[in-house]
Amino acid sequence: MKKIEGVFAPVATPFGADGNIDFGKYAENLAKFNKTGLAGIVALGSNGEFTMLSHQEKLDLIQAVRKGIDGLLIAGTGCESLKETIELTKGAADRGADAALVINPCYYKRDLGEGTLEKFFIAVADASPIPLMIYNMPGNSGVNLSSNLVLKLAAHDNITGVKDSGGNIVQISEILAGAPEDFSVFAGSGSYLFATTALGGKGGTLAVANVAPDLCAELYALCVKGEYDRARKIQLDILQLNACVTSRYGIGGMKAAMDLAGFFGGLPRPPLQPANDAARADIRAQVEKLGLLGKYR
Amino acid sequence: MKKIEGVFAPVATPFGADGNIDFGKYAENLAKFNKTGLAGIVALGSNGEFTMLSHQEKLDLIQAVRKGIDGLLIAGTGCESLKETIELTKGAADRGADAALVINPCYYKRDLGEGTLEKFFIAVADASPIPLMIYNMPGNSGVNLSSNLVLKLAAHDNITGVKDSGGNIVQISEILAGAPEDFSVFAGSGSYLFATTALGGKGGTLAVANVAPDLCAELYALCVKGEYDRARKIQLDILQLNACVTSRYGIGGMKAAMDLAGFFGGLPRPPLQPANDAARADIRAQVEKLGLLGKYR
Amino acid sequence: MKKIEGVFAPVATPFGADGNIDFGKYAENLAKFNKTGLAGIVALGSNGEFTMLSHQEKLDLIQAVRKGIDGLLIAGTGCESLKETIELTKGAADRGADAALVINPCYYKRDLGEGTLEKFFIAVADASPIPLMIYNMPGNSGVNLSSNLVLKLAAHDNITGVKDSGGNIVQISEILAGAPEDFSVFAGSGSYLFATTALGGKGGTLAVANVAPDLCAELYALCVKGEYDRARKIQLDILQLNACVTSRYGIGGMKAAMDLAGFFGGLPRPPLQPANDAARADIRAQVEKLGLLGKYR
Amino acid sequence: MKKIEGVFAPVATPFGADGNIDFGKYAENLAKFNKTGLAGIVALGSNGEFTMLSHQEKLDLIQAVRKGIDGLLIAGTGCESLKETIELTKGAADRGADAALVINPCYYKRDLGEGTLEKFFIAVADASPIPLMIYNMPGNSGVNLSSNLVLKLAAHDNITGVKDSGGNIVQISEILAGAPEDFSVFAGSGSYLFATTALGGKGGTLAVANVAPDLCAELYALCVKGEYDRARKIQLDILQLNACVTSRYGIGGMKAAMDLAGFFGGLPRPPLQPANDAARADIRAQVEKLGLLGKYR
Repeated sequence: MKKIEGVFAPVATPFGADGNIDFGKYAENLAKFNKTGLAGIVALGSNGEFTMLSHQEKLDLIQAVRKGIDGLLIAGTGCESLKETIELTKGAADRGADAALVINPCYYKRDLGEGTLEKFFIAVADASPIPLMIYNMPGNSGVNLSSNLVLKLAAHDNITGVKDSGGNIVQISEILAGAPEDFSVFAGSGSYLFATTALGGKGGTLAVANVAPDLCAELYALCVKGEYDRARKIQLDILQLNACVTSRYGIGGMKAAMDLAGFFGGLPRPPLQPANDAARADIRAQVEKLGLLGKYR
Repeated sequence: MKKIEGVFAPVATPFGADGNIDFGKYAENLAKFNKTGLAGIVALGSNGEFTMLSHQEKLDLIQAVRKGIDGLLIAGTGCESLKETIELTKGAADRGADAALVINPCYYKRDLGEGTLEKFFIAVADASPIPLMIYNMPGNSGVNLSSNLVLKLAAHDNITGVKDSGGNIVQISEILAGAPEDFSVFAGSGSYLFATTALGGKGGTLAVANVAPDLCAELYALCVKGEYDRARKIQLDILQLNACVTSRYGIGGMKAAMDLAGFFGGLPRPPLQPANDAARADIRAQVEKLGLLGKYR
Repeated sequence: MKKIEGVFAPVATPFGADGNIDFGKYAENLAKFNKTGLAGIVALGSNGEFTMLSHQEKLDLIQAVRKGIDGLLIAGTGCESLKETIELTKGAADRGADAALVINPCYYKRDLGEGTLEKFFIAVADASPIPLMIYNMPGNSGVNLSSNLVLKLAAHDNITGVKDSGGNIVQISEILAGAPEDFSVFAGSGSYLFATTALGGKGGTLAVANVAPDLCAELYALCVKGEYDRARKIQLDILQLNACVTSRYGIGGMKAAMDLAGFFGGLPRPPLQPANDAARADIRAQVEKLGLLGKYR
Repeated sequence: MKKIEGVFAPVATPFGADGNIDFGKYAENLAKFNKTGLAGIVALGSNGEFTMLSHQEKLDLIQAVRKGIDGLLIAGTGCESLKETIELTKGAADRGADAALVINPCYYKRDLGEGTLEKFFIAVADASPIPLMIYNMPGNSGVNLSSNLVLKLAAHDNITGVKDSGGNIVQISEILAGAPEDFSVFAGSGSYLFATTALGGKGGTLAVANVAPDLCAELYALCVKGEYDRARKIQLDILQLNACVTSRYGIGGMKAAMDLAGFFGGLPRPPLQPANDAARADIRAQVEKLGLLGKYR
């Protein structure tokens, strides 16, 4: 299969006024992403509000993205139960996903020790027709997948990489130091794409790539070419925008930034809330500072 | 409606060898619970593995419990999206649930501030045909519902109580000090049922009530009658069994204890694992010490 | 020795305008406490700003309290190093302390596992001329002393009790269930004095006892006499004042409340700050509501 | 003054069989460090067991280091009270320290909000005859100094840098993006020296530099020269040794590694424990793998 490498956007899911997925707007966003430097799209990532969607909506979305993009498609398929995770992963493969991004189950935290999580990922990898990327997202899941666990999983033929959204650069370094050469270690946020790539990472799937796809792709390409000074500058420049669309204002903030950059962002699905006026002013300032206002209109 | 008061078992969901819900075993368990001192049943609590079940399985379970029990039925209906939470709550009401136990959405932790959670609960309460109990379960959700938030929600006509599984006795005290007289504050674990009731709580929904229903009901009844010395003794006596079926061995441990006490426990749904041999030996010792071995066979 | 039982005030340390300890004001406060229902005084607790004081200041303070009070004197003697802890404990004994309250070292958290902490407490207990109370204060130290550890330590002849300021009522219950009858389990905050005593605790050392000593002593006495309804009422009534002098406004808040109640509070030692105006208004409202304004003038 | 730049060792404090500081062994270690590529020494850092030492011992140590080294001397002077911190900082300056490394007070966590900590650092900086480095060590202190706070402090004329031992690379990046050009941002651990330097950091003070000083100095020098491929290799190679002397085995592990590399490590001051046999075997394997066994004998 094609190598999982480069910068991916974990696309937002557009909703219409009736609260349902707006597939038309979705297709328009994808058409715009096709013209950027992105290597591909992650559907049903955290930024795609995957926990807000029904099983059927998830399958429909994967199909829509597959039709809408030229590049690689990674589909988020992790659920609390092993059974549903396997079903969704197979459904994603049937609909043309190149790989599955699998987050760990996390509700029963005390029952989900490292041995249990290892069994979970191995079972999904064994059953999956497409390669898996492990998805570590401790900020949302409340569970961290240690470098030790990820390195064990990296030995499986059908586990091809990890998207680490914990941002612990030591943990990321430990994975890079111990994993096979072709194991793709991805930054899970635009705020440490430079550090991850400089240490040997193969790309990232970044909320901020929904707003500034070309800047993120350029940062990565410069690192790969060894042009660290220019890459560093972009990294430091995008920190504030990155914070606006992640830690500072969440999904609502990311969607507001997409609207400002010329994509369709719209409203998140409740209980998630849209960005308020103060947040929008902050976001607009960052979008403008990077010359992104209306750039993708 | 009937008052939400007394001890409830958050019933386990039995699975067959094929991984599907075993409604026959479920009915047998319920028939046994009907003969105990329990005030009712909570279906689809954390101990019912609600996050492992599909929307349709949840509706089927509620219907099955309604048919199977004489007492009150509280159904867990909280989901990540507001839309699905309301749909499930209405579905539960249609199937005869007396109240809905609603956990807060929790995946997008940084997006779910107290104001947003308040809106969520108010929207569900407004839309629900049956009264709501707030479900605070920070150990699993990673989010605590403060006494301040719970007291705001307690003012809503259709919000009738809180099940607090955080175990912070100060927070529970603050709710009891500030809530209306008819607001039911429930202990969410058997390890602080005594303290909660002594402070004015109205009952509990307790994992350990799946194993020792009559002992839990007696503890509560003694507190209500002011017989604190006898109640305290039961409280201290059940701490170790309570730990076995919650913090120490989780769902697998609870199901193993149910098997030992004469209910059907069986296997949890993967990735959850059954208790291992060392755990079973510990659990058996506690079950025996309390004279519960085979008591409900 | 006299039994460690009842309510103790962890006295504040008064500072003069020059930043030094004001022993005159200290003596005045102690004289007032002598007339209350308190069982004794804890010098050099967290509320006594012990980490702000030099070794010599600590010794001087212990001497001053011993001269100033009729009841029991417990002196806080825990330091980061074992050597200094033993020296200070011996110094406290020389100056007439009845018992030593020993907090665990906590700076090197990852080096201080339960086995290491056990060795620490055993070494202090072996070397100490006076009995030890273990001091668990996870909110400040960042380390929790588990019920398992405390129960191991409770077996030592020279370890006589625990002051648990973590407020985890299950942990407190587990200690009460497993400890020898004469082991004194103390509530470390006024917010769970009722629950702790109802479960079998022997008293408390409470910030709020610096402001409302008689109310706290009464709450405890009522519990001991089995008058739970009256005790519960006091418990729920003092929650807000208790929060003001602990979690809400810290040491500065406690000293402001002492001033309002008629003791000398004054300024904390920097970097600790006095309560600001908004805090003082909140504190005053709570002090007034309980009829404590100027009560001890 | 000389610029604070390069790699520093936070020297261990050697203790004799009597538990007192062994100044002879200390001098021997320093003489060896003088011949390495280190830019200087940090006395009284966390690795120097500063919380285990008396005020007088601290002053004596600073004097001893000043006599023993050719390079820059940074002295750790942070205490819980502002008063003692200022006294110790002045004492350090009197004894020839080039800069003071000031950790935040941390015991009264809830009283020490960002405004209070800002006042603390400003007061120390105003009173200090020598420049300050802020010391952020959340793993031990339980308090994180945000990039926002550090950037405010960076504006003070007498605050010259930060040693960030939290390891949050995003926070480090935010400081680098916002601080004046001459503000020195230091990695606080050898596990992210590469990432920090690649992003624009000016050096580090690293436990592992007590064991592998030349390797650490080389890693830094290569980054500065833009030789990222070689620097990256060293970074990934030293991760395991770094873990052994920090997160995995703490102070005892670091001292054991020093012994193996040919420095004097010896025993930590109790309650800290020496590394046990299993730890020593792991440490030895890492020391050997890097060719450091006996290198500095």
